[in-house]
Amino acid sequence: MSAPFQRLDHIAIIVRDTDEALTFYRDRLGLPLLFSQVMPDAPVRLTHLDAGGGVHLQLVQPLSAEHPLSAWLDKNGEGLQHLCFKVDNVAESMVTLPGLGLPVRNKQPHCGPNGRSAAMLELSATRGVQFEIASDPRPAAN
Amino acid sequence: MSAPFQRLDHIAIIVRDTDEALTFYRDRLGLPLLFSQVMPDAPVRLTHLDAGGGVHLQLVQPLSAEHPLSAWLDKNGEGLQHLCFKVDNVAESMVTLPGLGLPVRNKQPHCGPNGRSAAMLELSATRGVQFEIASDPRPAAN
Repeated sequence: MSAPFQRLDHIAIIVRDTDEALTFYRDRLGLPLLFSQVMPDAPVRLTHLDAGGGVHLQLVQPLSAEHPLSAWLDKNGEGLQHLCFKVDNVAESMVTLPGLGLPVRNKQPHCGPNGRSAAMLELSATRGVQFEIASDPRPAAN
Repeated sequence: MSAPFQRLDHIAIIVRDTDEALTFYRDRLGLPLLFSQVMPDAPVRLTHLDAGGGVHLQLVQPLSAEHPLSAWLDKNGEGLQHLCFKVDNVAESMVTLPGLGLPVRNKQPHCGPNGRSAAMLELSATRGVQFEIASDPRPAAN
């Protein structure tokens, strides 16, 4: 049986204001800014910085008071929120992971930046650490 | 001016019991176990797993009720605790980082696994994310 994850993809940090947070992560820590995108299917801004080794820091700014991460921010303040591991195919992992004791929270994959597909695991099964899985878009068929 | 950090080194996760936690991180997630060590100068067990890209997950188990992380566990439960970035020399960084707006919590470096040197930054200056710096041992002079 192959391992459920390929490798660490990114570490998510929830922030109240991306531009203000970048004055710390980009300007003070010197981490290279890779891209910043507003997701179409959820009011959230995702900003990636290069942490080395192909691993990114992802700044996550909820853009509406109704977004669940706005309540997370009110409770916890800015800080570490989840670890995302790369998988080959999120839709396939959503089928196989529950059988490995890793239930998935989503019914459908959600959209990550750059057309990626992603899903959250059930926090109750992962010892207090929120895990996400993500996969790259399939190459278009010719 | 050079960037204050080289690259992401590890992500620390506080656990109550390392052996029990390994049944999840090693056995269920399939992350390769690299080493497990009890630190001589603090009653804490540090266990590293390979997350890919040269980045480790570090399981941190406090071994006495008086260790500050025991209070952290009682308050937060198991979970993400800090990000550690590699620097060339922790002692030198402890001198230069405060001038870059990154004050250091330690007066002296503490011992990491495998003879490494480490120090914690002041949480109040790092937007809710605890940062550590670590450097490899100096090669012995001939």
